[in-house]
Amino acid sequence: MGVRAGIIVTGTEVLTGRVSDRNGPWLAEQLRQLGVDVGQIVVVGDRPDDLLAALAFLGHGNDLVITSGGLGPTADDLTAAIVAQAQGRPVRFDADLEQRIAAIVERLSARLGGTRSAEATASGTRKQAMVPEGATVLEPAGTAPGLVVAVAEGRIGPPVIVLPGPPWELQQMWPAAVAAPDVAALLAGVPELRQHTLRLWGLPESELAATLRRVEPDLTGLEITTCLAAGELEVVTRYAPDAQDALQRLTDAVRTDFPTQLFSDDGSTVDEQIAAALIARGWHLAVAESATGGALSARLSGRDGSGAYLSGGLAVTTDDALTSIAAVPWDTIAAAGPVSPAVAHAMADGARTRFGADVGIGVSGIDAGSGARPGTRTTSVHLCVITPDGQRARSFTTSAAPATLRQLVAPAALHLLRQLLSPLPAAGSSTGRT
Amino acid sequence: MGVRAGIIVTGTEVLTGRVSDRNGPWLAEQLRQLGVDVGQIVVVGDRPDDLLAALAFLGHGNDLVITSGGLGPTADDLTAAIVAQAQGRPVRFDADLEQRIAAIVERLSARLGGTRSAEATASGTRKQAMVPEGATVLEPAGTAPGLVVAVAEGRIGPPVIVLPGPPWELQQMWPAAVAAPDVAALLAGVPELRQHTLRLWGLPESELAATLRRVEPDLTGLEITTCLAAGELEVVTRYAPDAQDALQRLTDAVRTDFPTQLFSDDGSTVDEQIAAALIARGWHLAVAESATGGALSARLSGRDGSGAYLSGGLAVTTDDALTSIAAVPWDTIAAAGPVSPAVAHAMADGARTRFGADVGIGVSGIDAGSGARPGTRTTSVHLCVITPDGQRARSFTTSAAPATLRQLVAPAALHLLRQLLSPLPAAGSSTGRT
Repeated sequence: MGVRAGIIVTGTEVLTGRVSDRNGPWLAEQLRQLGVDVGQIVVVGDRPDDLLAALAFLGHGNDLVITSGGLGPTADDLTAAIVAQAQGRPVRFDADLEQRIAAIVERLSARLGGTRSAEATASGTRKQAMVPEGATVLEPAGTAPGLVVAVAEGRIGPPVIVLPGPPWELQQMWPAAVAAPDVAALLAGVPELRQHTLRLWGLPESELAATLRRVEPDLTGLEITTCLAAGELEVVTRYAPDAQDALQRLTDAVRTDFPTQLFSDDGSTVDEQIAAALIARGWHLAVAESATGGALSARLSGRDGSGAYLSGGLAVTTDDALTSIAAVPWDTIAAAGPVSPAVAHAMADGARTRFGADVGIGVSGIDAGSGARPGTRTTSVHLCVITPDGQRARSFTTSAAPATLRQLVAPAALHLLRQLLSPLPAAGSSTGRT
Repeated sequence: MGVRAGIIVTGTEVLTGRVSDRNGPWLAEQLRQLGVDVGQIVVVGDRPDDLLAALAFLGHGNDLVITSGGLGPTADDLTAAIVAQAQGRPVRFDADLEQRIAAIVERLSARLGGTRSAEATASGTRKQAMVPEGATVLEPAGTAPGLVVAVAEGRIGPPVIVLPGPPWELQQMWPAAVAAPDVAALLAGVPELRQHTLRLWGLPESELAATLRRVEPDLTGLEITTCLAAGELEVVTRYAPDAQDALQRLTDAVRTDFPTQLFSDDGSTVDEQIAAALIARGWHLAVAESATGGALSARLSGRDGSGAYLSGGLAVTTDDALTSIAAVPWDTIAAAGPVSPAVAHAMADGARTRFGADVGIGVSGIDAGSGARPGTRTTSVHLCVITPDGQRARSFTTSAAPATLRQLVAPAALHLLRQLLSPLPAAGSSTGRT
């Protein structure tokens, strides 16, 4: 049937958690779009034996293996040499490639005000120009070239795509990797693998599980996974085009059982729904937040094109700033306390006034900055959304750590705004595709 | 020699990149503190064969295997059953455990305003109460119990710790997992494994590599990894206590070659250094940002205790908001343009004025919200920091995508502030430990 791939992420910094891997997930999604099913992602440190063992492990049962990382100039970067060994190919020095890398390093070093001569970095460059015999070289996006390395003749195993670790370099190089002859031949004629997402808000996973069990016999051909993240429940289905009817039955069952909790059946996120609703009304949004210290504003402004509906944000934690910056009346703070529904309302109102916006969100609560420790106390969070059409408020308490609190509060605020902006999904809307 | 562990993260949502894994890195760091070396992290989807293959792979060469995820009530949660199979143990129903889980689910469902009867979720609860014979049950932190499962008698292989996927639940359960008899016996007498971090700013990795190659013969007993992330270069060394002298030689060599770029040799981050310097001076900091839309403010306020030195932040993208909120004079915008060094200066000044703060940071640039697409244009970013003692500015251009831009700009602003606040590291300071 389909083509299956395994991914290896190298780097002790990833294995030990100092850097969180972005390449594995990115590659998995690219491969899915090409119809390739990803079986495993393996993270290993910069140790030859561990990388060799991972290559052997993924070489069984996969049609393609992709590595990221370990192509730099330092001694702990050893992926190219190990992949060559695993594929049974000797390594050769590529003088032309060395010249190209040296030119890149020189430009980079000059820009950063480098203090070293070209000779000092030459052995690193020479190392990066050592290429497995017969491999396809992928031109550097940073300083490191990538590779596509097929197994040596007479051996059996999948080709290995060798990519650099920095996400930007890896992503730049990906089209060339896919176009390399060994990879292109593998991908030719691979059937489509579709993915569809339902999103629900305010539902325990156990209730969804009961629904899925009930309709399971009708869902042949669907690979369904559910996932609870920051209060949202995602139901992601992967399927071949001929299972489209089964997908419709799944969607209908979820809509019937959870009509108010299902907020997305076309792949759209709450962020996208809010953006569309604000643009449709020609409204601008402003935020004033204490409990989230700018995180809600950063999430909203991080979307491409948010300038069309987002006016800005105020991160205010002190009582002084609440009044002087967010226009919360002293009387309100005195009467209700700085963390209160009344202050959340005044913040939403203040954000509208200060920015001249149509819609305001106020988030009142204790921020991480207060030094409150997780577990030592219960924190109250008060949310308020005001639009020209009305307002909506919600309060809740949590004993979550400050960092977790932010991950809970931002979606809660966005869903409050969504509920105020948009009608519930219509029962007859069709099942889209992400 | 030491104890070595492998980690398995299960879940199609992680494998496909919809959720980024936080458990692998967290577990790796916990294990390091216990002196346990982590060899691999393997991510697999919710497929029995893949999980079995991963257990077999990690069962070789490791003394301990830890899984996270796949303990929920839905059908795709199958870790407990598969681990039982891999360890050669039959699964038994634990009636007492079922009662405890049912009580938790009932409370949770009531809190979320659940619409289903207890019977509807009962089969999920029964599934979660199926336990491998002879396993140690770790009490649920959410609804899912964890397990420690040794291999069946007569077989060979490491014990497997089975933990739930939600990071909070996993972390709550970890102490009980470490205390379980099979694990405690393994960890008894494991020698210490130390870790030390050097951090540099404004240096190409290739120059650092040249230094490391030169002093390599003097560094026996050190496992050194270097990593470039958002402009910072990290040198992390893992070592046994008897290699302390070699670590000192490494630190001295890096300090000698890069005296201005080395900003941390005691594990401290730029965020921590800024916090300490501001607290020592009794200064408060305020931010006005356009290019980063609240992300710099969110990063600063996310630190525990930041309330002691952070006044707040203004996320302003429109010309109107620049003047009305951040107090940037119209004349400045008209003369220099809204994205300019002069506006960055006025924003830093405006943030100080508006919040009554001692220190201001201004970040002027095009935000993601403008709809500018990556690659289509070069973006200019202008940074300015003003303190009672002086000011410092920096401008740069980048063609990075908006999300990447934020990851570059925030550290650049923080290092600008650091350079203004703190003297360079003294040449004689001792080597600390993280």
